[in-house]
Amino acid sequence: MAGSTFGTMFRITTWGESHGEGVGVVIDGVPAGLPLSGQQIQDYLDRRRPGRNKYATARSEADEAHILSGLFEGRTTGTPISIAVYNKDQRSRDYSEIASYYRPGHADYTFDQKYGFRDYRGGGRSSGRETIGRVAGGAVAAAVLAKLGISLTAYTASIGPASCSPERFDRARILESPLYMPDEDAEKEALAFLDECIENQTSAGGTVECLIEGLPAGIGEPVFDKLDAELGKALLSVGAVKSVEIGDGIAASLALGHENNDAYKAAPDGSPVKLSNHAGGIYGGISDGSTILVRAGIKPTPSVSREQEALFADGHVDTIRIKGRHDPVIVPRAVVVAESMCAVTVLDLLLRNAAATMDHLRKIYE
Amino acid sequence: MAGSTFGTMFRITTWGESHGEGVGVVIDGVPAGLPLSGQQIQDYLDRRRPGRNKYATARSEADEAHILSGLFEGRTTGTPISIAVYNKDQRSRDYSEIASYYRPGHADYTFDQKYGFRDYRGGGRSSGRETIGRVAGGAVAAAVLAKLGISLTAYTASIGPASCSPERFDRARILESPLYMPDEDAEKEALAFLDECIENQTSAGGTVECLIEGLPAGIGEPVFDKLDAELGKALLSVGAVKSVEIGDGIAASLALGHENNDAYKAAPDGSPVKLSNHAGGIYGGISDGSTILVRAGIKPTPSVSREQEALFADGHVDTIRIKGRHDPVIVPRAVVVAESMCAVTVLDLLLRNAAATMDHLRKIYE
Amino acid sequence: MAGSTFGTMFRITTWGESHGEGVGVVIDGVPAGLPLSGQQIQDYLDRRRPGRNKYATARSEADEAHILSGLFEGRTTGTPISIAVYNKDQRSRDYSEIASYYRPGHADYTFDQKYGFRDYRGGGRSSGRETIGRVAGGAVAAAVLAKLGISLTAYTASIGPASCSPERFDRARILESPLYMPDEDAEKEALAFLDECIENQTSAGGTVECLIEGLPAGIGEPVFDKLDAELGKALLSVGAVKSVEIGDGIAASLALGHENNDAYKAAPDGSPVKLSNHAGGIYGGISDGSTILVRAGIKPTPSVSREQEALFADGHVDTIRIKGRHDPVIVPRAVVVAESMCAVTVLDLLLRNAAATMDHLRKIYE
Amino acid sequence: MAGSTFGTMFRITTWGESHGEGVGVVIDGVPAGLPLSGQQIQDYLDRRRPGRNKYATARSEADEAHILSGLFEGRTTGTPISIAVYNKDQRSRDYSEIASYYRPGHADYTFDQKYGFRDYRGGGRSSGRETIGRVAGGAVAAAVLAKLGISLTAYTASIGPASCSPERFDRARILESPLYMPDEDAEKEALAFLDECIENQTSAGGTVECLIEGLPAGIGEPVFDKLDAELGKALLSVGAVKSVEIGDGIAASLALGHENNDAYKAAPDGSPVKLSNHAGGIYGGISDGSTILVRAGIKPTPSVSREQEALFADGHVDTIRIKGRHDPVIVPRAVVVAESMCAVTVLDLLLRNAAATMDHLRKIYE
Repeated sequence: MAGSTFGTMFRITTWGESHGEGVGVVIDGVPAGLPLSGQQIQDYLDRRRPGRNKYATARSEADEAHILSGLFEGRTTGTPISIAVYNKDQRSRDYSEIASYYRPGHADYTFDQKYGFRDYRGGGRSSGRETIGRVAGGAVAAAVLAKLGISLTAYTASIGPASCSPERFDRARILESPLYMPDEDAEKEALAFLDECIENQTSAGGTVECLIEGLPAGIGEPVFDKLDAELGKALLSVGAVKSVEIGDGIAASLALGHENNDAYKAAPDGSPVKLSNHAGGIYGGISDGSTILVRAGIKPTPSVSREQEALFADGHVDTIRIKGRHDPVIVPRAVVVAESMCAVTVLDLLLRNAAATMDHLRKIYE
Repeated sequence: MAGSTFGTMFRITTWGESHGEGVGVVIDGVPAGLPLSGQQIQDYLDRRRPGRNKYATARSEADEAHILSGLFEGRTTGTPISIAVYNKDQRSRDYSEIASYYRPGHADYTFDQKYGFRDYRGGGRSSGRETIGRVAGGAVAAAVLAKLGISLTAYTASIGPASCSPERFDRARILESPLYMPDEDAEKEALAFLDECIENQTSAGGTVECLIEGLPAGIGEPVFDKLDAELGKALLSVGAVKSVEIGDGIAASLALGHENNDAYKAAPDGSPVKLSNHAGGIYGGISDGSTILVRAGIKPTPSVSREQEALFADGHVDTIRIKGRHDPVIVPRAVVVAESMCAVTVLDLLLRNAAATMDHLRKIYE
Repeated sequence: MAGSTFGTMFRITTWGESHGEGVGVVIDGVPAGLPLSGQQIQDYLDRRRPGRNKYATARSEADEAHILSGLFEGRTTGTPISIAVYNKDQRSRDYSEIASYYRPGHADYTFDQKYGFRDYRGGGRSSGRETIGRVAGGAVAAAVLAKLGISLTAYTASIGPASCSPERFDRARILESPLYMPDEDAEKEALAFLDECIENQTSAGGTVECLIEGLPAGIGEPVFDKLDAELGKALLSVGAVKSVEIGDGIAASLALGHENNDAYKAAPDGSPVKLSNHAGGIYGGISDGSTILVRAGIKPTPSVSREQEALFADGHVDTIRIKGRHDPVIVPRAVVVAESMCAVTVLDLLLRNAAATMDHLRKIYE
Repeated sequence: MAGSTFGTMFRITTWGESHGEGVGVVIDGVPAGLPLSGQQIQDYLDRRRPGRNKYATARSEADEAHILSGLFEGRTTGTPISIAVYNKDQRSRDYSEIASYYRPGHADYTFDQKYGFRDYRGGGRSSGRETIGRVAGGAVAAAVLAKLGISLTAYTASIGPASCSPERFDRARILESPLYMPDEDAEKEALAFLDECIENQTSAGGTVECLIEGLPAGIGEPVFDKLDAELGKALLSVGAVKSVEIGDGIAASLALGHENNDAYKAAPDGSPVKLSNHAGGIYGGISDGSTILVRAGIKPTPSVSREQEALFADGHVDTIRIKGRHDPVIVPRAVVVAESMCAVTVLDLLLRNAAATMDHLRKIYE
């Protein structure tokens, strides 16, 4: 199993390389009867292309989603939705130079070791273009979830040292921001830091957070397929992600037990009020009805303009300089990818939970 | 799918509750012909019971592994190995009090929400005893890996603010240490901190690291079933884990691209030498032949002696005090669990990689 | 993956050999809140032991089911149900003779080829005792289905040339019959034929049918996981089954199209009446609300008393005679196994169908 | 899980409807380094279109395979191969009539029951066009198997009462025959029978057999994922298949034990010679190194020209007559589909077996 499928009940199978005919996804397990338009999918794909500025590679044309199956008269039929995005930019080039060495920080070496050779024209399956299929799948998952009152909001939480503050969190500006940051001050700081990176011929990393709101309690399977475990796998399967945190995450390791437990108080009318959400809405791998918070840490873009020492395919080491334009940061482009992976994961577990109790079955079959 | 199975080719299916007849595991996909003794499994289980001291609950008797199938004349047969550990300590008790409320920081509430009721006698499937099956499975996985020259070493990397230093890393003392810490100074600091926690009727969290050495390059599937993604799921599926990091982990988000890339230099004889391992031995989700490093962050034990506000099953909120003896830290007990989950994960991907190339198939079938 | 797990949402994982400590099953994905007693499982297991007569091996004691997890106060908790049946009859014997050759018609040779050696004390995993786990799983599945108004009825449809007639089908006598045959005349003929087989030191095969009644329309997934495809796999996974038929089965290959189509007529009140059920209740892999009919063909017991030519482990061929008592037929013992596999299969697809439409999701989550 | 994926290690995921943009498949788990051309896939697809004669619908143009990913410089890269066949013939038509009723013998009614509505323009996912993805996947699987010395040969074994005789089996004529029949006499009889069917406005069924030669012993997983169980599922997942037989199949139910056991004799040089292959090359679900033989029974085409009574969507029953040209038999078109499903199944189990023993692992990793 080459591992191109994610999910059990709702599952996406992605295909395609950076320098092939195209990329795409087959989305299986979509509940029948969902109103769905091509535009909903295109909107998600367009979010992969943040403002064409000096912080992100300009592509002259959008990635256009072609829906090849699974819809009839504007509704999902319950059969797989196949979506293809054809590559437009396949000009023949001389790849002899980059074929000779393994780019530092990339998967060139490991692909070669695994398969005995590699498609040296680009990142192949480890290219960022592979995420197009994930995002198309996420758009469909999010559409199902939205109908059930569940929403996802991902954003750039930090770039290098520039970190958003909860106090200045402005949800409305996320999709307006060139960096998808909800905090204007942090964004200014981030932009200045990125200018510095460009000047120094280097790149920056950062973190992405995703809020999942409206999720009912009870979602997630105990033991191995916990909600947090599946979200963790989903996010760590995105290239460049090197850490995942749930709720307070790494900070919880340093907390004291009586402070880290989310406690309740009685409201004036006696109803229970949860006083904190250190756990990020998940206990025992199961949602508790609060907002889910997950955070992914992303390493700096490995392609930088400055000279680096690289391993060559013939075994020697030498200095190289990778040509072309390099994005100083990929974190903003990863925002919609993270949101998509969370949407796919949550929907899958929501569908799996539909068979959790005899009561659920009675509602359906009686 | 209630999610009690982990793995594709090598798979463990665990069962059992804290207050039932016992706990156990069915281990399927074990390669045939591996010499294996019950003692190898028992040794792993015994590591779940760190030194009977004031930092860990004393149980008078060991958890005894009963191997019910899958071995013949001291070797694995290729058929499932079923292992049971029967619960010895099932005295009837009055559970009426703890049945009435949801313990803060535990999964009591979410289980109830998911299934409509819960086994109120203890943690049920979210109890630490569930990990016994994982550890038995990990012992078998580690035995296979050892025969192929692959070893795993997990240890407590920090407890609260007491953090092991790479400079003082002493591998030999890990299994000797009451806290499974490789750094004596850090251990002293940790013990003092735990004394403080006990005094303050609270508890501590910490981090566990696992090194995987000898793993060949090429292990891990591109895209969704990346080595790091599967390790992340494996570790986040362990109760109380709230963060997972690969290599430099969260620190990579703050690094600069040219520094974070693992570079090579030529040795005097011309052979390549990798100068760093920021990536933790994984690129594009595939091992590069270096040591794999993963880190799991663990929240403080939720059961503390002091008074807490808790939600009751009838909806009201009131002050409770959980009786009994409470461990001030569970991190040391999680060390062998983390190592086991890593072993299961790595073996599964190693077996999946056996069919990756035509060359591999020719070696087997020609 | 050694293939010891069956099902996606409702899944059974069996373990155990004929000459090991015992056999058993872990049943995962059981909906929570189902009232379930040990006796319900025992009743199914007892059906594996048809009347202790000369047509079936007499075992002095019943196979006793030990439920180790997954129940609380008489109801399922949603967590895995682990069931073990310990082998009682493990007297040490001299196996040197049967270790030296491969029994004709058995899996001795293929196990040896696959794994490099075999447990020569008996059938190992290919022993009939392996089906105990299936039957325990089937008992649980049938209990869920019964609560939803779905019932299964399996029976011996033929033994050798003695075949039950639809005209003489008497459902009430199935569980009373020593051969589980619903037709008394056919049973008499079968008993006479078996006497002949015993006299001739040979054995007989036959067919088992299973009716599934009350199944709602819409169960089964189009394309690969069709209801009939999954039933076919389920039945062919039972040792000795060499054919599977749905509805008219093999006879449909000889029919004419206009006769084979199940047509409707209008009842006097205008409501539609289906006039036939050639398709066995399945169209396009999906149930149509009619009775499902499947049939499994079972080969004669390979162990016979007469002399046979056998392949020896050292490569030579010689005459052997297998000692001990041999059942002249195993078809009656396979009846409850077939019923169990059908129950597991149907429940799994029923649970999977719970997420098929937005309407289903709204019923559960709104 | 809508069930559009088949296989564990080698897996195909098909998509597409008869009246959508196209149909296709994503093939994952293809071993890297296999030389593969588009023509190899096209050759298989062309076999779905038997001679354009009066026994099969004439399509003016071939189904053209577009390979969108997974190949580089004529070899497989180990990443998924995505293949699309775009539908050419999507003229708008008036579907109001066929939308009003459920075609007898088709899946129209069950799809409607499952999903709440249906794509009434044709068979949707239950159309024969869905098999295009299977055949493209089968072509790739067969190419891998061929490199390992394993070949598959499927053919029409019978149409109605016209059945091929083993004595007149002529392998060379299979691909030449308009009906893919290896026996010229049987073919003549079949053609006469089909002429009769056309005259009578009805249709015929038949059987397809597949031989798998060169398969090493040891392939297939004991218990649930037996070679025969997986082949059975694979074949029963093809629309219109109503029975599956392994080796002697249904005839084994009538055989006597001592006759049905495949016996050995010693050749003059002492080497063992297997005297029969009643079991079809499979014991205990594992291949024994002999030729595998499987047989699928196919019902007559449900679409016939004559008047039939049909159920209407509004609940009433009335006489209908389905317009258009109807194939009197689909068995020949199913030959390459059956061969493809067998290829996919066998390759999947062959890949799974690569991790069966420590010896295999040592060959790969040492």
